[in-house]
Amino acid sequence: MTDRTGSQLALAEEALKSIFSKRLTTARADREAHGRDESFHEPALPDMVVYPQTTEEVAEIAKICHQYAVPMIPFGVGTSLEGHVAALKGGVSIDLSRMNRVLEVRREDLLCMVEPGVTRKQLNTYLRDTGLFFPVDPGADATLGGMCATGASGTTTVRYGAMRENVLALTVVTPQGDIIETGGRARKSSAGYDLTRLFVGSEGTLGMITRLTLRLYGIPEQTSAAVCAFETVADAVNAVIATIQSGLQVARIEFLDELQVKACNQYSDLTLEELPTLFLEFHGTNETVERDANRFGELAREFGARDLDWATKPEDRNRLWAARHNAYYAGLNLRPGAQGLTTDVCVPISRLATCVEETKKDITASGLIAPIVGHVGDGNFHVIVLVDPEDREALKEAEAFNERTVERALNMGGTCTGEHGVGYGKMAWLAKEHASALPMMKSIKAALDPKGIMNPGKVVDKA
Amino acid sequence: MTDRTGSQLALAEEALKSIFSKRLTTARADREAHGRDESFHEPALPDMVVYPQTTEEVAEIAKICHQYAVPMIPFGVGTSLEGHVAALKGGVSIDLSRMNRVLEVRREDLLCMVEPGVTRKQLNTYLRDTGLFFPVDPGADATLGGMCATGASGTTTVRYGAMRENVLALTVVTPQGDIIETGGRARKSSAGYDLTRLFVGSEGTLGMITRLTLRLYGIPEQTSAAVCAFETVADAVNAVIATIQSGLQVARIEFLDELQVKACNQYSDLTLEELPTLFLEFHGTNETVERDANRFGELAREFGARDLDWATKPEDRNRLWAARHNAYYAGLNLRPGAQGLTTDVCVPISRLATCVEETKKDITASGLIAPIVGHVGDGNFHVIVLVDPEDREALKEAEAFNERTVERALNMGGTCTGEHGVGYGKMAWLAKEHASALPMMKSIKAALDPKGIMNPGKVVDKA
Repeated sequence: MTDRTGSQLALAEEALKSIFSKRLTTARADREAHGRDESFHEPALPDMVVYPQTTEEVAEIAKICHQYAVPMIPFGVGTSLEGHVAALKGGVSIDLSRMNRVLEVRREDLLCMVEPGVTRKQLNTYLRDTGLFFPVDPGADATLGGMCATGASGTTTVRYGAMRENVLALTVVTPQGDIIETGGRARKSSAGYDLTRLFVGSEGTLGMITRLTLRLYGIPEQTSAAVCAFETVADAVNAVIATIQSGLQVARIEFLDELQVKACNQYSDLTLEELPTLFLEFHGTNETVERDANRFGELAREFGARDLDWATKPEDRNRLWAARHNAYYAGLNLRPGAQGLTTDVCVPISRLATCVEETKKDITASGLIAPIVGHVGDGNFHVIVLVDPEDREALKEAEAFNERTVERALNMGGTCTGEHGVGYGKMAWLAKEHASALPMMKSIKAALDPKGIMNPGKVVDKA
Repeated sequence: MTDRTGSQLALAEEALKSIFSKRLTTARADREAHGRDESFHEPALPDMVVYPQTTEEVAEIAKICHQYAVPMIPFGVGTSLEGHVAALKGGVSIDLSRMNRVLEVRREDLLCMVEPGVTRKQLNTYLRDTGLFFPVDPGADATLGGMCATGASGTTTVRYGAMRENVLALTVVTPQGDIIETGGRARKSSAGYDLTRLFVGSEGTLGMITRLTLRLYGIPEQTSAAVCAFETVADAVNAVIATIQSGLQVARIEFLDELQVKACNQYSDLTLEELPTLFLEFHGTNETVERDANRFGELAREFGARDLDWATKPEDRNRLWAARHNAYYAGLNLRPGAQGLTTDVCVPISRLATCVEETKKDITASGLIAPIVGHVGDGNFHVIVLVDPEDREALKEAEAFNERTVERALNMGGTCTGEHGVGYGKMAWLAKEHASALPMMKSIKAALDPKGIMNPGKVVDKA
């Protein structure tokens, strides 16, 4: 815990101001924009926002904040969902969005170096002419620094892995203001403790990521997408389970329940049948894509699937995935003015059908309006509970539903968060899920950030 | 550093003896067998060897050793190569080889739970009837606990990843004797710091692994292996680079230089042409294996490859891979009575041809007898320098060669160890490769093992 006082904060502000001048702001609008993410969690405003442009500047900030024991909260574009960026103890929001250069693409090594403020769409636009792409896709156009910090994954993880598998090396500024390099450019290494993976998912509580080396992949010769509707949720999910167990390689296999399909039809102007549905994508050559798609079709028919509806033209495919990416906003649109409380459990694949079905029953019994979408190939799904933000009772009910959903997943050997992270919203569940390991996590936090100034009140550090 | 005295050691021995009775030994032969690995590094004998059979027993040992500040060195089957198991400060060797049960196979979740003493061959034999297999294959029949602790990889990593990618969860006994669970059975999770990956490659310096949850894969419908010879080392390596860059999926792609081929011919009774050679394996369906193999063949011909020599029959395939796995012993056999000093660098794939060629020139210039083998698809290769163990001068020359090899790899953005780990043999190089990150690694070590009793003198902890 910090023993920061008003005057220490003032001294830090003065020191930072002398370096950053107009790139430091205490304007309320800026502070408000930096104290909240896209979730329903209560925002908390930082005392100031600083916009560094280099690793060295981030190190300068850290040295000053460390000297005066002032909290630091790294900020990308604020698309997190568990209150990650809320300045629970005030302090400095460090906005890394101006560090947004793609530094180098090494085509022959299938990797690139980027600053943390580069967003995933920006990177893929930059890469377009190289024949390469970066696969991790959480839906939101998050920054790669933020995606690394939260351990993001998404629609393509079933094929290409999550951030954990696709970050090779990091530059990190420590809470003391030292600059360290983790990992390397070789594909593999057994040289010492795996600090890279320690920082993936550390949510800004151990240090600040200022540069990333990422794995890239060749754009597949052929990509083809399809939509496949089922009579029941169980049929759809069981088709996914059978697909994964068969070893069939899909690039994406996303589930939308009938309410989410309805929402997407309305929001994205589609005309899908309002049934539990899978959105699929296959990557490969002309031959393999056709063969894999046929194999999936056969398999899906065993679960009573309707015929696959193919989107082979790029524009149809893009329309489909744009609709999937807008699923959250489409959901919100089902109930204008509503806020979404998003659950994020992940269970072993064998328990997925049961988990989704029981969750669905719970939604019905609770009278909630709550579409379901999921990266079901990984066992991960989200329920978006639509809540009138003015209705405190409804919010409490939604929270209780979230707790039941997490409890159900933990009882099935699952996790309270498949990809959104802990922030300050899931700390109690983290403590339950990893009761035996929590003291070790706390030891690591205390060892690397003894003053408790890195994003305090998050992950393992009670506010 | 411990302040262990003779009497503390005696007290620990007494306490352990009262629990383990005949499963504790101080016999010199046992101590000798536990103080050395398969490397040329100087052995160091533990004061005693204990054979626990359960996680709880390991925790009992840790509590006693913690109380008396006595070093603990976890031991599997001793196949490590950087002096990992040498008891540099004496203490207790904890032999986990009797904890060798496969606890559970969850076919539907493609995972299994094993004790740390299960070896990779034992696991795959156990799995034979399930249609599943565990892919990580470092050559030696190491224990899975040891493979996890050293961050092992091997011939199939190019397709299936290393231990890092294939360990889902661990049970760990801390240096204080607490039992913790890391990770989980869900395919992915963002719940807190990634302790699983911290323990992968921690080499017994942070705690002891007593149970592992591992990812399994369906045995491919079709497997086919081939041998492909080239005129020059550069041609062979460039064919590999082109293969990786093209995105073609190979399950194995191993390089042997002409001297290693000669050694394998002699040792394993093969009749290969004594040229730089690739051993390949393709996994898939009948169709995809044929197509991938043809694509590789076309690609290899551009680099002047001879015709591929196919081993489609299981017995031929097994003979080939047995020869590859025995490459180390085959190498030793080139010079009877010799010991092998094995290098282990890994470089970005674009630098591989240059790195191997320069290394080869160095071997020639130094007059060493030193075959080369490598997991070249990952950029990782080994030189086995054959040395008469009585000839101190020759050993020094071999060590100097190793240093030049590491230096060369680091200058190319590579790592001093692709898969063997640090032990006490590579500490100086770790310090050079990760100079900026070393203090953080040391902080973690100090936080989790403040008495410095877990495998002291290894990785980051100077003896």
